Amino acid sequence: MTSGSSFLLAARQCEIAELEDLAQTGELVGAIGRFVHALQRERGLSNVFLSSHGSRFGEQRAQQVADCRQAEQQVRAQFDRLDTASSRVRNGARLFSRVAVVLHGLDGLPQLRDRVAARQLTTREATAAFVRLIAGLLAVVFEAADSATDPEVSRALVAMFNFMQGKEFAGQERAFGAGAFAAGGIDGAGQQQWRHLVDSQQACFQVFSEFAGPEVLRVDQAGRDATLLAEVERMRRMACAGRPGALDANLSQPWYELSTRRIDAMRAVEDVLALHLRHLCEARIAQARSELRDQRAMLQALASGAAYPEAEPATAYGPHLERSLLGMLQEQSRRLQAMGDELDAVRATLNERKAVERAKGLLMAHRQMSEDEAYKALRRMAMNQNRRLVDVAEAVLSLAEVLPGRR
Amino acid sequence: MTSGSSFLLAARQCEIAELEDLAQTGELVGAIGRFVHALQRERGLSNVFLSSHGSRFGEQRAQQVADCRQAEQQVRAQFDRLDTASSRVRNGARLFSRVAVVLHGLDGLPQLRDRVAARQLTTREATAAFVRLIAGLLAVVFEAADSATDPEVSRALVAMFNFMQGKEFAGQERAFGAGAFAAGGIDGAGQQQWRHLVDSQQACFQVFSEFAGPEVLRVDQAGRDATLLAEVERMRRMACAGRPGALDANLSQPWYELSTRRIDAMRAVEDVLALHLRHLCEARIAQARSELRDQRAMLQALASGAAYPEAEPATAYGPHLERSLLGMLQEQSRRLQAMGDELDAVRATLNERKAVERAKGLLMAHRQMSEDEAYKALRRMAMNQNRRLVDVAEAVLSLAEVLPGRR
Repeated sequence: MTSGSSFLLAARQCEIAELEDLAQTGELVGAIGRFVHALQRERGLSNVFLSSHGSRFGEQRAQQVADCRQAEQQVRAQFDRLDTASSRVRNGARLFSRVAVVLHGLDGLPQLRDRVAARQLTTREATAAFVRLIAGLLAVVFEAADSATDPEVSRALVAMFNFMQGKEFAGQERAFGAGAFAAGGIDGAGQQQWRHLVDSQQACFQVFSEFAGPEVLRVDQAGRDATLLAEVERMRRMACAGRPGALDANLSQPWYELSTRRIDAMRAVEDVLALHLRHLCEARIAQARSELRDQRAMLQALASGAAYPEAEPATAYGPHLERSLLGMLQEQSRRLQAMGDELDAVRATLNERKAVERAKGLLMAHRQMSEDEAYKALRRMAMNQNRRLVDVAEAVLSLAEVLPGRR
Repeated sequence: MTSGSSFLLAARQCEIAELEDLAQTGELVGAIGRFVHALQRERGLSNVFLSSHGSRFGEQRAQQVADCRQAEQQVRAQFDRLDTASSRVRNGARLFSRVAVVLHGLDGLPQLRDRVAARQLTTREATAAFVRLIAGLLAVVFEAADSATDPEVSRALVAMFNFMQGKEFAGQERAFGAGAFAAGGIDGAGQQQWRHLVDSQQACFQVFSEFAGPEVLRVDQAGRDATLLAEVERMRRMACAGRPGALDANLSQPWYELSTRRIDAMRAVEDVLALHLRHLCEARIAQARSELRDQRAMLQALASGAAYPEAEPATAYGPHLERSLLGMLQEQSRRLQAMGDELDAVRATLNERKAVERAKGLLMAHRQMSEDEAYKALRRMAMNQNRRLVDVAEAVLSLAEVLPGRR
């Protein structure tokens, strides 16, 4: 075989290796989805436990902590499978940094739980700690989606990331709403924040529905209980549509249970997404392997001078090795180019999130804000101007040039 | 040490491994630069040899072929250093495919030379074969630039790619001009094509000067002989500025020699670029290694509970491991994010070339054109409409939606 052919085969082997890495990434993302769900429940139960001064959900909370620990072990096992020794993991620098942040957060989790159990934290403080940890886990999923090199898999990961992020906004809405009802009233700022959580969910689910395959969307549709959704909307309207004012404190628990049913239904969709991702990777790997086999057989036959007397017209290669190899090279280049183009298109949606991150960084550097303050400032601007977060972020970034310089 | 810290260190090790890969890529790019230069000379000599019916440059051509073979061996040695067995080479699928195309072209080189020696090819055919081979080599450089993960190195590679591409347009101009003078006249289409070669060079050198560091630009400026440039401009004007018509055939050789002096001066700049790239990689690797050492020492000290009583305020870490580690994590995240943003900005210029490639692919698919025909069609549109190639490409792409579909 010529050296050109061996590079052609090596290129295909790289594609297979990338797909195998993606299959492993898919398992990591699946484990993160289960763990995030457990943490969201723990956050909700802790919330009610704290706001009821320890009188409610004490036992359920303890049970949920046990569930959480189990899900955490699975995520840790997936982290351990990441090949930190090789230094050749795709997007390794960013991915490992995100994992380090998560592990650091996990190390602090036992202490957080002790303080919740001892009621040494406010509801707001406990919620913020869980929100941070979950954001760290979602950032790992984001890096995984951003490093995928296969457009179909990347598409599935983008759908998954957005669904998980949307579900997290739903979780935050559950906690926020439960708190507002329990407090017996809501002010204008509270209403705005609630509406913002609803809008954020919708934006995420919109991207999800653009990127998820029809088989996933069908499950998502089937899982939507119209009665449940109507009830959620009714309670949202009760709290947000009218003037700020009193709310019936007795509605805190019904709201919490309603939201929980909705979020649990989302969890089922996540499982389908994870399964779909796994099947997709398996199918793409099988396909790439079979193409590699064909390619290798053809190159060997060509190298040994064998003709294909009975080959069908479409696959018939003439006696000229030179011409056939050229055809294979051109086909491969065209295919890789088409994949690259499609990948660029899929990734464009990830750039919206990057713009928000970048704007946050800018505010942190130039206004000496913490990450949390920067995010809140952006969100406040978005709410006040009634614009999407990404649009506000881009407006902030366009101001970067007039801000005092700092490299 | 905590597992969080070990991921933090692993992230840094990934960065170092990426930089080491880039250093090797730099050597490959350097070898390609030398080989392309040798091929450009061989193309020029073969051109004159063929157009003089074998009466001129026969000996120089034979000598140049020997030089070319040597430069080719160095490129092949660099290709052999690529780790095709690991399947984990960054951007491996695309890079290896480009290499396969080049190796295929190199396999055909002896036959091409035999046919030139036997004068079985027209000047145009021989030129086209060399242009294709050089385009394949430059595509390898492009993939190398596109896969760089360090913004500074990426910047240097973008400068280098554009310089090499500009020099190749200068080489094509040399051949085209020599042919036009030798033919004793030029028509309107010929003048347009010549002007287009000049514009293409300028566009490349413009990008180069935006991305090259001041030390490289200084050498580039110093290497520009004003008398030589003025003479090049005078001869260009003679051929292109007036009405189409007769040219003095005796000017073919002076034009050829003048262009050769200009192109040889460019070769010297390429060497400086390659050297700069090597130094840059070495400096970045040394810096990353030293930061890794510091980070590891600090984490170990923190883990063993040691304080830094004499540390300076800026680097002082309090007694709380928890807080210090968090600071390191945040610093690393911020740094990686800034690098990612800068990298995106550098890569944007590479997307212009991708647009041209994509438009070519579109024409090939929908108009059943060969790659060469598609490129010529785009160039013709650019010339006729007096627009940049990338603008024409983007116009073609925006028509994609109304063209009959084909996935």
